[in-house]
Amino acid sequence: MSELHERILASFSAQGLMATLGAELIHVAAGEVQIALMPRPELSQQHGYIHAGAITSVLDSACGYAALTVAPAGADVLTVEFKINFVRPAVAERFVAIGRVTKAGKTLTVCQGEVVGEQGSGREVIAVMQATIINIPGVT
Amino acid sequence: MSELHERILASFSAQGLMATLGAELIHVAAGEVQIALMPRPELSQQHGYIHAGAITSVLDSACGYAALTVAPAGADVLTVEFKINFVRPAVAERFVAIGRVTKAGKTLTVCQGEVVGEQGSGREVIAVMQATIINIPGVT
Amino acid sequence: MSELHERILASFSAQGLMATLGAELIHVAAGEVQIALMPRPELSQQHGYIHAGAITSVLDSACGYAALTVAPAGADVLTVEFKINFVRPAVAERFVAIGRVTKAGKTLTVCQGEVVGEQGSGREVIAVMQATIINIPGVT
Amino acid sequence: MSELHERILASFSAQGLMATLGAELIHVAAGEVQIALMPRPELSQQHGYIHAGAITSVLDSACGYAALTVAPAGADVLTVEFKINFVRPAVAERFVAIGRVTKAGKTLTVCQGEVVGEQGSGREVIAVMQATIINIPGVT
Repeated sequence: MSELHERILASFSAQGLMATLGAELIHVAAGEVQIALMPRPELSQQHGYIHAGAITSVLDSACGYAALTVAPAGADVLTVEFKINFVRPAVAERFVAIGRVTKAGKTLTVCQGEVVGEQGSGREVIAVMQATIINIPGVT
Repeated sequence: MSELHERILASFSAQGLMATLGAELIHVAAGEVQIALMPRPELSQQHGYIHAGAITSVLDSACGYAALTVAPAGADVLTVEFKINFVRPAVAERFVAIGRVTKAGKTLTVCQGEVVGEQGSGREVIAVMQATIINIPGVT
Repeated sequence: MSELHERILASFSAQGLMATLGAELIHVAAGEVQIALMPRPELSQQHGYIHAGAITSVLDSACGYAALTVAPAGADVLTVEFKINFVRPAVAERFVAIGRVTKAGKTLTVCQGEVVGEQGSGREVIAVMQATIINIPGVT
Repeated sequence: MSELHERILASFSAQGLMATLGAELIHVAAGEVQIALMPRPELSQQHGYIHAGAITSVLDSACGYAALTVAPAGADVLTVEFKINFVRPAVAERFVAIGRVTKAGKTLTVCQGEVVGEQGSGREVIAVMQATIINIPGVT
């Protein structure tokens, strides 16, 4: 595991919500982070499918951590805002949230991301996000 | 409790994620729904504050249910997309997500919402959302 | 005319696009700016109605100038991002874009705005916006 | 010129705003449309650079026409909403707005787009958009 991966994992593991959702950090590279999520009744909306809020939460984290991979040493990040479109029903065996850096700046970083639903050998995009993240002094 | 409130509560109670988050439906009126959320370690981000994803999930539900209060009889709703800005640190004793209908159409409804953080006798807006919801045939 | 109004007007008058669109600065107060726009064939989309881009341009300017009214002395502003929903057909005798500050910060300001269509004595909201603006050192 | 290109061009040519801005339709394919825009003083913001509203207008049109290329025969389209991030200063010799279909549905189509600034042999993304478009019965 790279030093970058270890650093992101340490922060990810400190997020109570990611544990509550059962989310798993599965890929860390400079400018890209992937988080996996399995559907469970505890994450459902009223018809038994996974709730848009659960999908959104892991994609927000994936975008935030993608921004963190390119942030200045010692900096931390905060989500300023994001927008998400749900483009297909969130029905799959596993969901993978992929956050990618579009443009890293000194103060603000813009990320774009998607959630892919995996079903058998098929993969389909079910949500797309555009997010703005701000660098803040790290908490030590 | 009004018939409208009962109908929304029945759907809300079927959302596994709302129970997992510990969210509570506290107000239902035509065009406005409020959901309360208490901060807990299980909902935290890496610094112990409540995760943006938890805040977003309850505000998404509040906007969706606000749209449902004005949807045609028998219709159900789905979130098409939303955008959320986080405007203050999410530090409070209790959070109240308020979803309000801006414009209800035959197919699409636009809602605006906010999350208010309550601390002692103070109340401050910590997030604002703009959401698009679509009416779909109800599942019976 | 207040000193604040004069300052905003000087910047507004330097925007070539606002002159090209025929937009007029009609109200400036701390935290709120209003810009009026008349429909013309030169601003149309393919069916003769006013183009969403014209509506968006004046609302973007109204939000940016609202942010500028509360920016630190000497600072200038730039739009980081915005989201706009079109909620009714843009048919009216006059459009008024209203930008309001939701939260002003040291670095970022969040604004919300709307475009109202005026027809006879009627007024209806036709678009709503949520925008993020950044303070930058002023150009002198 | 393909039948598809001709159809899009007929609609584009009827948009008064595109002529006012000096925008040019330069590429039409199934699921992708490109529109070019040259910077001019008539399109400026207060510092002489191109106004975010002009950039947004052509990208909105590019996304809308991309959606139209995949709409059912006889249908027309309307922009429901969009979100745009400005990621670099809009300084270039020419701007190219590229709209692409992410997911076409029976009622709604989601597009993603970008504006690229061309300077000498360099090309840089200066803005990214995520948009929702609705199919409506065509006007005949």
